[in-house]
Amino acid sequence: MSNIVVYSTERCPYCAMVKAYLGKKNIDFTVIDVGNRENIEAAKEMIRISGQRGVPVTVIDDEVIVGFDTTRFNEIFGAEEAGGVYDLIIIGAGPAGLTAAVYAARKLMKTLVISENIGGQSNESWAIENYMGYLMITGSDLMAKFEEQVHSQSVNLELDRVSKIEKRDDGGFDLLTESNLNYTAQSIIIASGKHSRLLGIEGESKFLGKGLSICSTCDGPLYRDKIVGIVGGGNSAVQTALEMAKIATEVHLIVRSSLRADEVFSNQLDRLQNLTVHSGFEISRIGGDKFVRSITIKNRSTNEETHIPLDGVFIEIGLVPNTGFLNGFLLMNDKQEIIVDENCHTSVEGIFAAGDVTSIKGKQIIIAAGEGAKSALEAHEFLMKKS
Amino acid sequence: MSNIVVYSTERCPYCAMVKAYLGKKNIDFTVIDVGNRENIEAAKEMIRISGQRGVPVTVIDDEVIVGFDTTRFNEIFGAEEAGGVYDLIIIGAGPAGLTAAVYAARKLMKTLVISENIGGQSNESWAIENYMGYLMITGSDLMAKFEEQVHSQSVNLELDRVSKIEKRDDGGFDLLTESNLNYTAQSIIIASGKHSRLLGIEGESKFLGKGLSICSTCDGPLYRDKIVGIVGGGNSAVQTALEMAKIATEVHLIVRSSLRADEVFSNQLDRLQNLTVHSGFEISRIGGDKFVRSITIKNRSTNEETHIPLDGVFIEIGLVPNTGFLNGFLLMNDKQEIIVDENCHTSVEGIFAAGDVTSIKGKQIIIAAGEGAKSALEAHEFLMKKS
Repeated sequence: MSNIVVYSTERCPYCAMVKAYLGKKNIDFTVIDVGNRENIEAAKEMIRISGQRGVPVTVIDDEVIVGFDTTRFNEIFGAEEAGGVYDLIIIGAGPAGLTAAVYAARKLMKTLVISENIGGQSNESWAIENYMGYLMITGSDLMAKFEEQVHSQSVNLELDRVSKIEKRDDGGFDLLTESNLNYTAQSIIIASGKHSRLLGIEGESKFLGKGLSICSTCDGPLYRDKIVGIVGGGNSAVQTALEMAKIATEVHLIVRSSLRADEVFSNQLDRLQNLTVHSGFEISRIGGDKFVRSITIKNRSTNEETHIPLDGVFIEIGLVPNTGFLNGFLLMNDKQEIIVDENCHTSVEGIFAAGDVTSIKGKQIIIAAGEGAKSALEAHEFLMKKS
Repeated sequence: MSNIVVYSTERCPYCAMVKAYLGKKNIDFTVIDVGNRENIEAAKEMIRISGQRGVPVTVIDDEVIVGFDTTRFNEIFGAEEAGGVYDLIIIGAGPAGLTAAVYAARKLMKTLVISENIGGQSNESWAIENYMGYLMITGSDLMAKFEEQVHSQSVNLELDRVSKIEKRDDGGFDLLTESNLNYTAQSIIIASGKHSRLLGIEGESKFLGKGLSICSTCDGPLYRDKIVGIVGGGNSAVQTALEMAKIATEVHLIVRSSLRADEVFSNQLDRLQNLTVHSGFEISRIGGDKFVRSITIKNRSTNEETHIPLDGVFIEIGLVPNTGFLNGFLLMNDKQEIIVDENCHTSVEGIFAAGDVTSIKGKQIIIAAGEGAKSALEAHEFLMKKS
């Protein structure tokens, strides 16, 4: 029997997924909350053995696995029985994919959801005030409710990643996943969402998880009483700055041009003593050894540079669509988003798309959920006409 | 001081609106729950003085007001201080309008919502299982949550009905209401929803509120231990049939062709001893005196007629868009729905539309809410570009 330790923080959604994955397979494991002050020595140990200042970190005997690495977990513990023929395969399990799943199941379509995680980017929201029905809820709590609703229906869910879609002669589609499983579907909904955009500067990839983070709700608690920087000027960046100001001693918000967050958030920035907004600046260099130790920011008008010693940097500069696996299969716009019409149809009959991965301008949970419902109703109509 | 009595049932949303209206104006009134078995004499009294088997009925001294008649209430009690200039006027306060209001307020747009009621058609849903975030919730409870969220923001709300929109020379719009008030807006979101379609047979209008009902959640409790018919084959009709089977002694579901409700609902019909489904039938005649006493239904294949003695009929045969006041102002489709693109733009710049009133195919609360959010974000962008 393996000895398994999961290093996590309280609100980290990917940590919750690691724990849920192991729990579902009846595997014993120990959890250490490294965001808790009492576990400061364990946090140091985790950083030492993983070389990471980020969670989740899972230690299985001598192997250290960083993040919720579905592919590696499936290799070690075995993938679920899978493959098969479905009426509908939904790619992605964020707000759009989960809503589509509920609607499809209620129409008694044989439905499979394939996704690397449950909840997608929404998990990473600190506090949501504009999802109708809840005055205030965290992203991971809301996604847990969505997931519960899916589990109340008859829907299969596989933690995997689709790597290829091909058209079949009978009008259906073949899908191949990274775990090398084959599926066939009569219709597809693509709701694969977006992932965080990176800065595109030198040394960036070296520091990811080593002081540079793209999930502040995951890694935020590891920066208690430290100095951090946040890059970005939208809602995510400003919300992260407001939250980190409660945890860190000093917070620097680095904004390329000017703040474009909702006024309800940006209005709160002035009140904070330990927060400095650097507007019109970009990061020119990340300095450090094994971990980030400083950044250099450059004034975009004057080119003047400022050196800021710090312990961590959170990148919140927007998102990139997860459409790489489509490889020209569907019409995209210049942002590489799938072009959809007002009823979620794509350029290929039988394939629908919903949520942040599409050309719809508003990127919001409530919008993605609505589009998910639309796409499932359209997929159902498509199958009815076909049969 | 007037003596005011409100006859209502427990879950009737329009009754709640009458009570909220009077409460907001600090007017004393007495409530009688005519859905309660103990108040059976009061129920008879209400039916006698109003000639109605439907709620709400409000008696103000000698005047009997049927329904939530905003115009008449405003005449008696005075309209709120109103008129004025707004960044955005939202017409309608169902899921789309209320969501748009929350999003607009968070963008600090000066926003007014004009609507005859709060919650629209959604109030009339018995139980909602496909609004993401709630496994099960009644329509009126969900709309109360939406309303609470609007009230947490700075948004004005007028209970009134827009009768006319005109374009101004400066690019804005003038709006006139039935209470004869004038408003000016830089942008408009139309989210006026739909209203119940009627059968279009002789004598129908005479029996409305007199045994013929278009709001089963309102009037259902008045048919305890009686015989009722429900007309329609979609989700609303089947849900109403399932609910009425608990209240009435005998339920007849009259379906024009075949059931098209979600299987999760229609599967439950077989189990009910006191429910008969008449598929392939339509109502040819409503019989009665002051109140409905029977219906005659006709087999659409054989023309054979069947006579069913009963006490009430609930019409659930779909909805008609509330676009009459637009009078050719915007491009419509052949169902008189406002044609919108994937980002809620209409054929007139500065006017957006969202929810059931639009050409979007899926008519669902979560879809309407998503479109409401989209439309507010687009209205905000429109104003930003204009200024």
